[in-house]
Amino acid sequence: MTLKDDAISLHRILKGKIEIKSKVFTDGALDGKDDTLSLIYTPGVAYVAQEISGNKSLAYEYTSKWNNVAIICDGTRVLGLGNVGPEAALAVMEGKSVLFKVLGGINAIPLCIATQDLEEIIKFAKIVEPNFGAVNIEDIESPKVLKIVERLTRELSIPVFHDDQHGTAVIALAALINALKLVQKSLSDIRITIAGAGSAGYGICKILLTAGCRDILVTDRIGILHPSRMDIENNSYKLEIARRTNPNKVVGNLTDAIRDSDVVIGVSGVAGLFDKNMIRSMRHGPIVFALSNPDPEILPPDAYDAGPKFIATGRSDYSNQVNNALVFPSVMRALLDLKIKKLTEEMLVLVAQGIAGLVDQVHLSEKYVIPKINDPRILPIVSETLKFAIINHLKSN
Amino acid sequence: MTLKDDAISLHRILKGKIEIKSKVFTDGALDGKDDTLSLIYTPGVAYVAQEISGNKSLAYEYTSKWNNVAIICDGTRVLGLGNVGPEAALAVMEGKSVLFKVLGGINAIPLCIATQDLEEIIKFAKIVEPNFGAVNIEDIESPKVLKIVERLTRELSIPVFHDDQHGTAVIALAALINALKLVQKSLSDIRITIAGAGSAGYGICKILLTAGCRDILVTDRIGILHPSRMDIENNSYKLEIARRTNPNKVVGNLTDAIRDSDVVIGVSGVAGLFDKNMIRSMRHGPIVFALSNPDPEILPPDAYDAGPKFIATGRSDYSNQVNNALVFPSVMRALLDLKIKKLTEEMLVLVAQGIAGLVDQVHLSEKYVIPKINDPRILPIVSETLKFAIINHLKSN
Repeated sequence: MTLKDDAISLHRILKGKIEIKSKVFTDGALDGKDDTLSLIYTPGVAYVAQEISGNKSLAYEYTSKWNNVAIICDGTRVLGLGNVGPEAALAVMEGKSVLFKVLGGINAIPLCIATQDLEEIIKFAKIVEPNFGAVNIEDIESPKVLKIVERLTRELSIPVFHDDQHGTAVIALAALINALKLVQKSLSDIRITIAGAGSAGYGICKILLTAGCRDILVTDRIGILHPSRMDIENNSYKLEIARRTNPNKVVGNLTDAIRDSDVVIGVSGVAGLFDKNMIRSMRHGPIVFALSNPDPEILPPDAYDAGPKFIATGRSDYSNQVNNALVFPSVMRALLDLKIKKLTEEMLVLVAQGIAGLVDQVHLSEKYVIPKINDPRILPIVSETLKFAIINHLKSN
Repeated sequence: MTLKDDAISLHRILKGKIEIKSKVFTDGALDGKDDTLSLIYTPGVAYVAQEISGNKSLAYEYTSKWNNVAIICDGTRVLGLGNVGPEAALAVMEGKSVLFKVLGGINAIPLCIATQDLEEIIKFAKIVEPNFGAVNIEDIESPKVLKIVERLTRELSIPVFHDDQHGTAVIALAALINALKLVQKSLSDIRITIAGAGSAGYGICKILLTAGCRDILVTDRIGILHPSRMDIENNSYKLEIARRTNPNKVVGNLTDAIRDSDVVIGVSGVAGLFDKNMIRSMRHGPIVFALSNPDPEILPPDAYDAGPKFIATGRSDYSNQVNNALVFPSVMRALLDLKIKKLTEEMLVLVAQGIAGLVDQVHLSEKYVIPKINDPRILPIVSETLKFAIINHLKSN
């Protein structure tokens, strides 16, 4: 049996990876022997509805809203598969929901939608908002999705988490913080090349800037982003990157960018994009993140061959898996519990630092820079760091 | 403690009546000791998504779609409370979801929406359709809701159930079929007055016509519906009722309608609408359904006082509770299992006859005309009758 056969046969047997579970009900209620039914449904629930109607915030107290997350996906950029449509996306989002539940205790409802129009997606999220404590935007194509996340962050009164952007940024920064300890370099002194200017590239670029990086080059299929590139003038996110990075106004392609970089982070979606010569052209103590899934920009054996001591991928079958599953359940848990309205770049940096800090100096090694996804210390540390972020924010205002 | 106190305190403790449950996952997967994670999530799920993308109907095989129902409510007509908004409606819809699960094994997701615009509600349902095997429209004001149900029935490729209309109609007809046995009358020979021309009145009127009733009067707040009433010319549903009922062109008010009726069915939402004199003016062997909740059109003690041997209400604290919970889980279960695309009036009549048939002649009495909601024979009989309806439909085409 191949992985494909196994995956399909498991899905065929399960017929769905999640289900609704009732938190109440006993045989007695159905027999009319106790009054549960009259409390949770008509007539009793009418009193509850009336209270909420008078004070909408009571929905957080009397319903599941506090723990409900909408996973909104239009099916346009699902995994590495591209535009597969909402029905296909549903299989993936149910898997995501399983991880939200098992790792974060969250009720995440897949809502894979039959529209790819930006305004309709924004409208959909606003219309469905009353049921949820937060929104998770997932696997929508860039740059459309960046606009959607920006608009919803401004226009919804519940927090918006964009795993492809925020989750990837946090876990990449966490891994990088520890990897830099191995080569004794500092974030503020190094040159980092990010290959890929979609959601992940944008998110990583922004978190690195907030964390104090000063020399970042970001490349897309055309080459290094810089403000004079005419082809990006209609993409405000690439323009933003171009204006905030590339301090030396370097013009060139990916090979030019990687040369003399300390770190290269691949989030390009292009398998085999990096070759050994590129890696060999990096500065001493090179750090390589080849994060595209399922096929990374360079396979670890090839990359190690070219010199680096530290390589990370998105895959579970190599060391140093940079996996969003470390981030999205714990950050969402904290957003919900702390009733945070807006997730900021500063919060994301603090979370990355908190997760990085779980790997102590004794255990830190080239094969172990980030905790495993089931590390029980993740939920509390993320909650603590976000509490700290809120307190700091209150102090500064 | 009052019912109100009990209901609020139970909801405060539960903080939500439903939750998402993962159907998979073991500690081994999180430890990396088994490969479940790589099958249900990336990379394995990519193969599943790819298969579905090539054949969308596989979403019924590989995801929960086959068993997922969207409960769509805009909060405009929640229970007897009126326009309380989506957050308040959420408490009620979670209760509905509990009953869908416990009585039908269905995953019903409350989607209480922040729009009351007809076109936006229709658009919302279409956009969210890929995740669901059926839609349940709930507690939306009439006549807007009737238009929504009509449009969605035509425009969606999954079945649309409108409990306020279809569920109430089925259970009212089931109870009426058995009540008529008690007084030895036939549906085709009697006069029935329906007090109320909203969703329930419209649904009951249509199912009675399909079942063979020939003399029906329907009243609203103004009086008996007839085609020459100018005030209903913009309400196509009231016009439809007016054209298909009132064969003798009776003009008058509710009192005029009830006089010489064999049956009166109250779905008016107006507590105490019927008085004893009205009931006394009915034909011999009067049958009174006072179904408005929580306060019926007449309380059973008063009604019995005026002569009838048979009275039904929507309440659990009197005999003969005409309760939709007998209908919506079982009909939805059958719609999903049999992959029925459209629910027809003929199907609803068959279901009502099937449910009525569960009460045998030996046990039938003035206090027992319909089964209890936890009667284990309901699911199979509804499934059987709908199978029969499909087979008949195939034969006739």
